[in-house]
This record gives sequence, C-alpha cells and structure tokens, in this order.
Amino acid sequence: MRAVVRRDRQLICEEIGELEPAEGQVLVRTLACGICGSDLHALHHMERLVDLGRRGGSPDNGFDPAADTVFGHEFCAEILDHGPRSAKAMKAGTRVVSVPITLTTGGMEALGFSNRLPGGFAERMLLSEALILEVPNGLPTEMAALTEPFAVGLHAVAKARMDASSVALVVGCGPVGLAVIAALKVAGHGPVIACDYSPRRRAAAERLGADVVIDPANESPHDRWEGFGVPKSRAAQQMTRMMGATFGRPVVFECVGAPGVLQELIEAAPAGSQIIVAGVCMEADRIEPSIAVTKEIELTFVFGYTPEEFAATLHNVAEGRIDVSGLVTGRVGLEGVAAAFTALSDPEAHVKILVAPEL
Amino acid sequence: MRAVVRRDRQLICEEIGELEPAEGQVLVRTLACGICGSDLHALHHMERLVDLGRRGGSPDNGFDPAADTVFGHEFCAEILDHGPRSAKAMKAGTRVVSVPITLTTGGMEALGFSNRLPGGFAERMLLSEALILEVPNGLPTEMAALTEPFAVGLHAVAKARMDASSVALVVGCGPVGLAVIAALKVAGHGPVIACDYSPRRRAAAERLGADVVIDPANESPHDRWEGFGVPKSRAAQQMTRMMGATFGRPVVFECVGAPGVLQELIEAAPAGSQIIVAGVCMEADRIEPSIAVTKEIELTFVFGYTPEEFAATLHNVAEGRIDVSGLVTGRVGLEGVAAAFTALSDPEAHVKILVAPEL
Repeated sequence: MRAVVRRDRQLICEEIGELEPAEGQVLVRTLACGICGSDLHALHHMERLVDLGRRGGSPDNGFDPAADTVFGHEFCAEILDHGPRSAKAMKAGTRVVSVPITLTTGGMEALGFSNRLPGGFAERMLLSEALILEVPNGLPTEMAALTEPFAVGLHAVAKARMDASSVALVVGCGPVGLAVIAALKVAGHGPVIACDYSPRRRAAAERLGADVVIDPANESPHDRWEGFGVPKSRAAQQMTRMMGATFGRPVVFECVGAPGVLQELIEAAPAGSQIIVAGVCMEADRIEPSIAVTKEIELTFVFGYTPEEFAATLHNVAEGRIDVSGLVTGRVGLEGVAAAFTALSDPEAHVKILVAPEL
Repeated sequence: MRAVVRRDRQLICEEIGELEPAEGQVLVRTLACGICGSDLHALHHMERLVDLGRRGGSPDNGFDPAADTVFGHEFCAEILDHGPRSAKAMKAGTRVVSVPITLTTGGMEALGFSNRLPGGFAERMLLSEALILEVPNGLPTEMAALTEPFAVGLHAVAKARMDASSVALVVGCGPVGLAVIAALKVAGHGPVIACDYSPRRRAAAERLGADVVIDPANESPHDRWEGFGVPKSRAAQQMTRMMGATFGRPVVFECVGAPGVLQELIEAAPAGSQIIVAGVCMEADRIEPSIAVTKEIELTFVFGYTPEEFAATLHNVAEGRIDVSGLVTGRVGLEGVAAAFTALSDPEAHVKILVAPEL
C-alpha cells in the first residue's frame, strides 16, 4: 500500500508492506488525517522530541527516531476487516475514530510515532477494536478527523478549574488555541478573550465563539482584563476583597509554544493568574521565578487528553455543540503531504490541512 | 533610639530619630525579631529586589533602595504607648505580633522594607492598632517572633490542594521548608518526606514531624515516591488507574530558591506533581517546558500569607500544635546583627537567629 514515509528528515511517498490485523485489531482504510504542529516539528527534530519524551517518562516502546516512520494521528477511517476471533461489534464499512494508540503483543504503539505501525498518512492502518469509536451517522468524515485536536482543548480546559468567576485569555489561535476556545464555549465558560497575529486565525477564533478577538500587533490583550472585572495587581485585588467585592479569576491559555512566551505572560498577566501551558515549547526557556512568586502565578502544564475526553469531543462535534466547519483550509493526497508541510510553516496560509490518501 | 541601619550595603548600628504614634498606631518596644533569608539577600541586592517587586506589581510606596532602611519583619514587641484618640483595647505592656505592615497617612509601609519606618532591628517601632494581635499568655516571646516565618508555611500548604491521597516532599529545610513541614503536620497531611544537605536542618525537620528525612548527598528523595504509593511515570499511573487502583498525589514544596532547582524537580518529580514554589529564586532560571508538559507538572508560585493565616499560625504555635522550640540557634543584640548576617551564610551554622535590641 502507499504511505508517506519520514526518512532522512524528508517525506517520501512510496509503497510499504501490507497490514494484517491480529486478534483485537481492525484493519481500516484511512479516509482523512490532519497534519499536526507536532508532525511539522518531528520532521526535522525527531531525535530531540524522542529525547525530551523519554526524559519526561513517556513510554515510546523503543521507538527509533532514525528509522522509518509514517506520521498521522488525527484520523477518521473505515473498517475493512477484523482480526481473528472478533465479535465484529462494528461491521466493515463503519466509519471510526480512535485515540492514536494501537495495542500490540509487543506493547502500545503510538500511531504517527511508531516504527512498527503506520499512522494516518497511509492508505490503511491497524487500530485496536477496544479503542475505536463509531462516527455518529451524518457527521462528515472531515469533521470527525478533527476530534483529536479538539480533544486537546477539552483536556486543557478541564485542567483549568474554571468557575463562574473565570475570565479566559487564549494566547495563540492555531489548532490548539481554537480547540481551547471551542471547549470553553461548549462548557459555557467565559468571557473568552483570544489573540493571534494572523487575521485568518482570528476569524476562526471569532467563529468558534471567542467574545473578544485581538490582534496583539495593535493592542495588548492584557489591557482588557480590567474591563472584565479582573484587577491586575495583587494590591488592587486585595483592595477589592477588603471592600467586600469579588473579582474575576484570570485564566490564561498559552497555545503558542515558543521560547519567551511564558516569561512574557508571567510579566503581563494579572496577579493570581493560572496559566495553562498547552503550547509545547521544545526548547529550553527562561523565566524569572521571583516575579511569578510575587504575583502568585500558577503554571499548569497540560498534555493530551483522556479516552473519555476524546469520546466527549467526538459527541460535541457530532451534535453541533462545536462547529468545526470552515477549519479545514486545505486537502491533499499522499503525494501532496510534503508540500503541505511547507505550506503550514506560514501561519497565515492555513488553519488545518487534511490528508486524504484517496485524493 | 538605637537601630541597625542598612546604608551602602552595610549594616550600621547607630542612633535614629524617635517615633511618635499617629492616630491608629501604637508605639512598641521590640522584644525579638528574626533575621530572614530575604534580609540577607536584600543587604546586597536591594535594587534588584525592588525592581523585581515592581515588575511583579508589588506596591512599595515609593521605597528607595539607595536610602536608609532598618530591616526586620519577624517580630514580637511590647506596647509602650498609643496614638491619639485610641480606645486602648490593649494596654501598655501587652506583648503583640503583627503582619509587618503599618498603615500611615501616606500609604502602607512594609516594615523592614521602608525608608520611613524602622523594622524590628530597632529598639522601637510603630505598628497599626488594627493589625496587632495579642500574644497569648504564656507563649514565650521568642516563639511568638516565629509566627511570621511559620505563616509562610501555612500559606504554601493552603495553596497545595492537599487531600487524603497526597504525599508531600519538602525540598530544603531552611526556615521556609521547616514552616511547610510544620503546617503539613498540623493539618494532619502526610506522609511528609523532607530533604536537606545540612544535618542541623535535617534534625529540625525531624523534630517538626517529617516522616522521612533524607540527605540528598546520599540518596535521591525521588527514590521514595514508589514506597509511598506514587508511581513516577504517567504510563505507570495510567496502568494503576486502568487496574481500578488509586495512587498517591505527589506534591513537592520547593523551599530552596536557587537557579536550577525548578528544572531538577521538573525532571525528577513524578508525573502529575504539583510543585509549590515557596523558595524565592531572585535570578533568571532555565526550564525545559516540554518535559513539564509531558509530565503534566504544575508550578504553583506562592508568596506571603493572609492576615487570617498569620493569626492561625500564632494560635498553632501558642497552643503547642507547632512546636518551635529549639529552632532559635542564636541571639544577638543590635551590635551583633552584622556578624549574624555573615554567620547565616553558612546553612549549617544556624536555623534562626533572633535579634533582641536589649541584649
């Protein structure tokens, strides 16, 4: 079958071996698979990614960053065949999504970051029967393929201890920031301030329900806190409290993942802010802890999602509570993947590009 | 009256002007005042301290780091006189403690970091009648003077969201770490693992009730997590959860405040750790956010305490729930303050030195 193989830091479209579902597995046909920011990073910096993951205690089942990999972990697929002794609870032809993990007799393979099993930039994949979820009838395949990135937003919001007094600022409206905005709005949280330099991303933030959308080139988003009832300094907050009044609880979602952003937020966010770090900065970063101390900042680093959050996201999308229409700004076949990676380096050019092996 | 004045980065014992209590103020005689790590730092780096405080939005009422300052914010004192129109709810001779703030017509003065009012390294001070607390009968003056540093521990623990499943590690057993251990034990939290390179500090940690006390020169405290039911990696935690079992919630108290400690903890602490940053690192620091992301670490920076926490600490000490005996390892008069600052640079030499102007 055809697949896009990462080899020598390049993406090569070629034939790879056919797959045979083992017991508990299903063979699926990939219908659509999103390109994630982590794929872009991994193309060039896989060694570093693996090293950081191992130092963080992330199991990777002996993944070799120098060996061939087929990326793709944001997919929607169709069941072709079942492994031996399957009860076949879902019939061939059923469209499914799954957390990007496949159980094998040799351990858990992270689809998209495995040397043994291909991810979604391949015509077919092996998924685990225990982990697949049926795509609800009527939900377009392209929308179902957005379940994975939107689950990241749901998880980030779950870690934010939001309450009725919370005021949210989403910094960066790439796929992660947009997923956070959607998860905030679907849970009825708000107000939600969002900012991004890209007009295209700002438009997407607005469509997903952000209450205020700001171009940080023109205006600091931190100028808006007071208007939403959040005093910025600890002294002003104490004064408000002494007068018996309440004030909004500032929650910042860092969805950029570049060096320097954390320190910028530590300096500019209101005292007492919880900063949810959902952007993944792969480089070492510099912070001034004493300023975070004085302001009693909280940095909550978040990662991934639970299977329950993944399933809840699928249903939020399927039932229209999260409107993901318009987010897919490009579609390519396997031959177009390498060019799509290049195109995505310009944040203005796209929100999400989907790979459809049939194209 | 005599006081120890900071001038040109030196401590000079000399005569300063007498104080006159204004309305709402009381004139007190300083009985005992602890030397804090922040005093040691401020002696040489006051400009940087003020700059960082301002960048953190901390009000300092126009404090000039180049002008004279009398340090001392951990005190117990005796009422000498009241300002005009006082109801004199506490008589002259009453022993009191206070949060180190005095209200003036020109704003709030932070005692110990003020150019206008002296802190506790002076024979007399002006306190605010509204903020003073009577020392309960029978509580020795030296123990009452430890209220302030121990309140820091109560506040740090309050921010830790401890529950019955929490396992605590206290890194660094200087005054802040010891206060954290005491606050953990008084609230019935535990187990509490503590570590410090200094035998003297380890002995103090043990006396305050730490369950396990470790010399990090011999053994990593992080080798103890599993023994207390905390799997270290996210994968092991997920596996435990999948098997329907529960596991301990890791909470780390960073009470060192030196560059590099945060990154060390991000790397070595269990996945999911809440790291309470109670140590104040005054320099810029380097972290690798992606490891914190993979492990879903939370960095909760904490500062000071509320008036309620200060009052609760006084009562915990007075009623013997926190046994602070044996922590005062040195006593000096005003003439001895400069030498005491030097002695405290060796963590082995002392736990806490008190200044008693009468000595």
